[in-house]
Formats: sequence, C-alpha cells, structure tokens
Amino acid sequence: METVSEARSHGGVQGVYRHASEATGTEMRFSVFVPPHEDGAKLPVLWYLSGLTCTHENVTDKGEYRAACAKHGIIFVAPDTSPRGDDVPDAEDEYDFGTGAGFYLDATEEPWAEHYNMRDYVTSELCELVGEEFPVDLDRQGITGHSMGGHGALTIGLRNPGRYRSISAFAPICAPSRVPWGQKAFSRYLGEDRAAWEEYDAVALIESGARPAQLLIDQGTADQFLEEQLSTALLRDVCEDAGINAAIRMQEGYDHSYHFISTFMADHIGWHAKRLKG
Amino acid sequence: METVSEARSHGGVQGVYRHASEATGTEMRFSVFVPPHEDGAKLPVLWYLSGLTCTHENVTDKGEYRAACAKHGIIFVAPDTSPRGDDVPDAEDEYDFGTGAGFYLDATEEPWAEHYNMRDYVTSELCELVGEEFPVDLDRQGITGHSMGGHGALTIGLRNPGRYRSISAFAPICAPSRVPWGQKAFSRYLGEDRAAWEEYDAVALIESGARPAQLLIDQGTADQFLEEQLSTALLRDVCEDAGINAAIRMQEGYDHSYHFISTFMADHIGWHAKRLKG
Repeated sequence: METVSEARSHGGVQGVYRHASEATGTEMRFSVFVPPHEDGAKLPVLWYLSGLTCTHENVTDKGEYRAACAKHGIIFVAPDTSPRGDDVPDAEDEYDFGTGAGFYLDATEEPWAEHYNMRDYVTSELCELVGEEFPVDLDRQGITGHSMGGHGALTIGLRNPGRYRSISAFAPICAPSRVPWGQKAFSRYLGEDRAAWEEYDAVALIESGARPAQLLIDQGTADQFLEEQLSTALLRDVCEDAGINAAIRMQEGYDHSYHFISTFMADHIGWHAKRLKG
Repeated sequence: METVSEARSHGGVQGVYRHASEATGTEMRFSVFVPPHEDGAKLPVLWYLSGLTCTHENVTDKGEYRAACAKHGIIFVAPDTSPRGDDVPDAEDEYDFGTGAGFYLDATEEPWAEHYNMRDYVTSELCELVGEEFPVDLDRQGITGHSMGGHGALTIGLRNPGRYRSISAFAPICAPSRVPWGQKAFSRYLGEDRAAWEEYDAVALIESGARPAQLLIDQGTADQFLEEQLSTALLRDVCEDAGINAAIRMQEGYDHSYHFISTFMADHIGWHAKRLKG
C-alpha cells in the first residue's frame, strides 16, 4: 500500500491510498479517515460505498463525515466503485455500467469477470488490508453507502451479519432486479439467469430470510431517481412483513445529491457508533 | 439574477446563482446557503472570500459550513475570486495572477482595470444584490476568507468597520506588499507606486491606524505557504503593538487545504454568530 496523500483534518488524518489489487487485477485507490485516538487503541470502522460515477473522492470531499467520526471515534473507509485502467473493459458513454458502476458484485460473464469483482474486493481484500494498515477493530464493523453503494451496503451487510454489526443506507437501490439500473448491470455482469441475481438484491435477500437486527435508511422525497430506480416502498413492505426493525425515513424536499447525504451523515455515524461501541 | 442550481441541505437551501455584473463587466457566479428560518425573518450574513485558483465551488463542496450556519441561523455567501470570460485578460499558466486571482482589489493598470474590480464587486454590487434577493439583514454582516481570500476579508473588513461587524480569516496573506504573491499581483494590477498598495495590505492598514474590535485567525503550522507568503507573525506583532484583541491560533500539523479550513469552520461561524447576533 502506498500513500497518495495525507492531511490533518478534524484532529485526525484524512488519507488517500493505493495498492495493487488481486481481486480486480488493477491498482485501486481508497480513502481512510482516522480520528484522534489514544496510542494503541483499536477503533470501530464504518465502510461507505459510493454511488454510480463516483470514486472515493466524492464522499471524501462532500460527505461531511469527519467531524462526527472524530466525535465518536470511528474510522471511515471509502473504496472506489469499480476497477479502472486501460486494460479494464468499459462501456463507453454509459454512466451506469462499467467504470464507476461495479455494483459491488463479482461478475461471472465475459469480458467483465476478470476485473469486476468489487464484492470480493471490498469484503475480503480491502478489509484485510485496512485491518493490517490502520488501527481498526475488525470485530466492530458497520457499513453504509449511497444509491448503488446503498445497494452494496444492504446486500453485503445482509449476507454477512456476523461481520457487519450495523447497516444503513442513503437512497439505496433496494431491489435492483426490478429496476432499469440493476437489470442492465446484472444481465451483463451476471447473465440472464435471475437466480444468480438474488444474492445482490436486498429485497430478495429479505424475502429469502435475511434478518438484520436493524436498518437505518434515509431517502429524499425530491430524489429524481426515487420512482424509477430505488423501490423504497418495497423495502419498507418486506421489512414490515419480516418484522425487521427498519427506520426508513422519507426526508422532505431532499434530492439524490451529496447535499442530502451530508445533511444526514452525522446522524448515521452516531447511529452506527451506538451499535459498534455499545 | 438567475438560479443555476438549488438543493435542500441541512434544513435550508444551498444555491448557486449568476448575474451580469457591472463592476466586472462579466457574468459572475456565487453560492448562497440560506438556513432554515421563520417566514419574514432577516438573518445575519457571513461573507466567505476564497483563495487563489478557487471559485465559489471549493468552499461550497468542501467547506463544511452548512451544519453550523443552520445551527446559528447565518446566511453564507461565497463569491468567485475573479472575473472570467473570453474577453477578460488573463495571464496564461500563472495560477497566482489573472483568472482565479483577483486579490479583492480594484485594478488601475491596463489591461486589468476594466474587469478586475473584485473589491467593488464584493462590497457594493454583490452586497446590494444579496440584500435584494435573500432574507439578509445588511446591518449584521461578518466577513472571512482563506489565503488570498483571508487577505480580502481582513482588508475589506478593516476598511469598512461600520459595515462588517466581525472579521476572521483562515491562513490569510497578512502583508501582501512584502511577499511574492502580493508583490506580483499589486505591481501588475496597481502599478509600481507602493502608496497605492497600502489599502490592500492588512498589516499596513493596522500600522496606519485601522483598529478592528477583534480578529480571529487560524493558521496551520504545516502550511506550505506559511514561511514565504503569509506573514502571520507580522500580523501578530502589529496587533500587539496596536492593542488589538486578535486571537491568532497556530494549529499544529494543519496544512493550507480545505482539510484545515473545514476543521475550524464551525468555530469561526460560531464566533461570528456571537458577534452578529449579540
């Protein structure tokens, strides 16, 4: 792992790092905020998965998470959203597939299968690296994300309940199998057999028995993607049917942007802190 | 004035606007955050002047001011740092002169005098426009800024004590007449007669009798420009000599970036709020 940049921020250190990833076969970059802490302490970690077109930079610049992480003593890690590079296949001019659109899955179809393994990357390789390089307590991990990254947080969290103690999301794609973004991505990354899609669909996972202890979801009512892509009401329904304690909060007038995310970021960090430090 | 974008954020509205400026003879853009407030209320306003190479976007993305402005009920306005456009003279490949480097002065030398009138723009035209278009109380204005914009905040604030009730700065250029950035800009915008530079130099203004009620300055000790460009110690000396109540805080390990600014932004907003609302 190499340091791209580090700067003191909110009493801690905001860094950007790069490493050669085996999971994706590319160089990957990610950002980590380490809050002020006592020497030798191991801190809880919150994973933040970003949305379509983003890199680690968007939330690092605009997420407004550092003050709350410093207050609660939480390490914040933001991975990239896909492999990148000249030898990585891409779908030119498509913002919602290929580069910037890894969908936190392990692709099985060609030509995507070699590099597009963001689930494996985030849950195994990057997790191990962060555990080695930063003062994190891997027994206290939470996960959150936005839009495509909210989908990633929900599905990764639901499938690994022992690993992630707390799961939240901002404007997640709740049922990708049923909406244009997800159908496009899954059919090309995973093929047309819909059985293979289920493990990457939060609503389907809950319908099949996943039972998170709690969920926290914020969703803006003025979000331009709410109707067509996000299926918030469907998530509410399956959580109710399954008896899951899910706080799904419709936030009046908020859109899909970082203005929405940053407004509720401190809330989410406090919510995770309570569950990771309790 | 036209709206470029508006989004709900931290309970208020973060907007970006544009208008045809008489002062600069160009279209100018600026951002305004209006916090939640009661109908009909008039709120104090804090002006934030940005540094070299910036537009309104840098602080709007990375400044982390909205939560504190929402808490204290402060309107936050971020102008651009220079005129821009195809018919505006520029100094190509110079990041510290021309576009993005207006230095908050009214140029008198050619070819800059026609468009580079950022002092007039900020203190008169934009102030009037903001007073007309937003729910601000122009009797309660504070001013702050970063680097070149810290210079702008100090000099504009010192010269207009009746207008700006509170003045602070992040890593300001305290004595531009004595450092490379300022000497380069002033000699070309204002000419070689150094008497014309004095009104744009905070240290010189205090030496000549300017007496602000108080100042708040934060400066990172790891700032790469501290030694050559910022003259923080000189400002401290003249404030001490003049008996000015200036809190000049050296912040250990912080650099010149928005990681530094955002760390102390809430502090500054709270400090201004106390003086604007007391």
